[in-house]
Amino acid sequence: MTTTGDTRARILTAATELFRRQGYAATGMKQIVATAEAPYGSAYHFFPGGKAQLGEEVVRTSGAAYLALIGELFGEDAGTDPVEATREAFLGAAATLESLDFADPCPIATVALEVASTHEGLRRATAEVFASWIDALAGSYASRGIGSARATATSVIALLEGAFMLGRANRSPEPVLTAASAAAAIVAGALRN
Amino acid sequence: MTTTGDTRARILTAATELFRRQGYAATGMKQIVATAEAPYGSAYHFFPGGKAQLGEEVVRTSGAAYLALIGELFGEDAGTDPVEATREAFLGAAATLESLDFADPCPIATVALEVASTHEGLRRATAEVFASWIDALAGSYASRGIGSARATATSVIALLEGAFMLGRANRSPEPVLTAASAAAAIVAGALRN
Repeated sequence: MTTTGDTRARILTAATELFRRQGYAATGMKQIVATAEAPYGSAYHFFPGGKAQLGEEVVRTSGAAYLALIGELFGEDAGTDPVEATREAFLGAAATLESLDFADPCPIATVALEVASTHEGLRRATAEVFASWIDALAGSYASRGIGSARATATSVIALLEGAFMLGRANRSPEPVLTAASAAAAIVAGALRN
Repeated sequence: MTTTGDTRARILTAATELFRRQGYAATGMKQIVATAEAPYGSAYHFFPGGKAQLGEEVVRTSGAAYLALIGELFGEDAGTDPVEATREAFLGAAATLESLDFADPCPIATVALEVASTHEGLRRATAEVFASWIDALAGSYASRGIGSARATATSVIALLEGAFMLGRANRSPEPVLTAASAAAAIVAGALRN
């Protein structure tokens, strides 16, 4: 049924947006269904495991969406210069940060820090999503002649996440713009080695 | 009075530890005073502004402690090679991450992401602390011949924060160890320019 699918999708979208703006712990099921304009019972109908199940699905769904984005930005059609592709990705991310009014462009970062020591299932979901991004980026780097591709990809993803943190705290895209040059330098250094 | 000072300090310490392990939103005043082994009323006696006041004080107090640590690691007595000092700082941070059983070595990171879009006073406190760290590191870099010292310091702090995020999600020091080389490369690149 279209309506059923719509309600479920609206709940997922609302939860994703609330988590990236205010985190996991501060977000209750009530606010999620209200934001989704869904009946209260529908959240537990679609997600009988409650907020933990919804949280894990948000992490995996938005993780997959970002994996696709990495494919677009760093895939075979994305030109062959990994240094410039990396710089462009950061410049785009800075614009996204601003367009989101400094909600987190990364849909799993806040949740990842909140749950790392407290919710084992959610922690694993965030770890698997981060690993999928690093694998995809490392694959692209390796195919473009970067030797230590996985280490390079790990550092580039870490730098982006940290730059989002500083940018959000400052309500400014500047840390992400600054990090664009550093990310390009990391990749350029790995290309020479 | 010694006891009064002790109770206040114990509450601050307990809040700092809980925030770095489970974040701001998930931590209630009840858990803080229980962890501090303090009477419940004492939290509001010492922090009449409640959790928001306590949160801001945690951010500023632990921010100042980390500023002192940056002074130790990158001050005039810390040798003159900024590349090696940076690498050593990351290697030490990786060990700290593990020794904390993957609670956040950064005492303000989780809070910073949680409050950036929702608690203006706390957001400002985190922004000021990040700026104080970047200023201190940039000062050290500048005195050692790095031209774009502030941009370099911003990227190094961002990389460390993001590496903590990946390390916590993975329950592994490996992302921070990996980032040590990337951080050294960023600083070495800035030294050449």
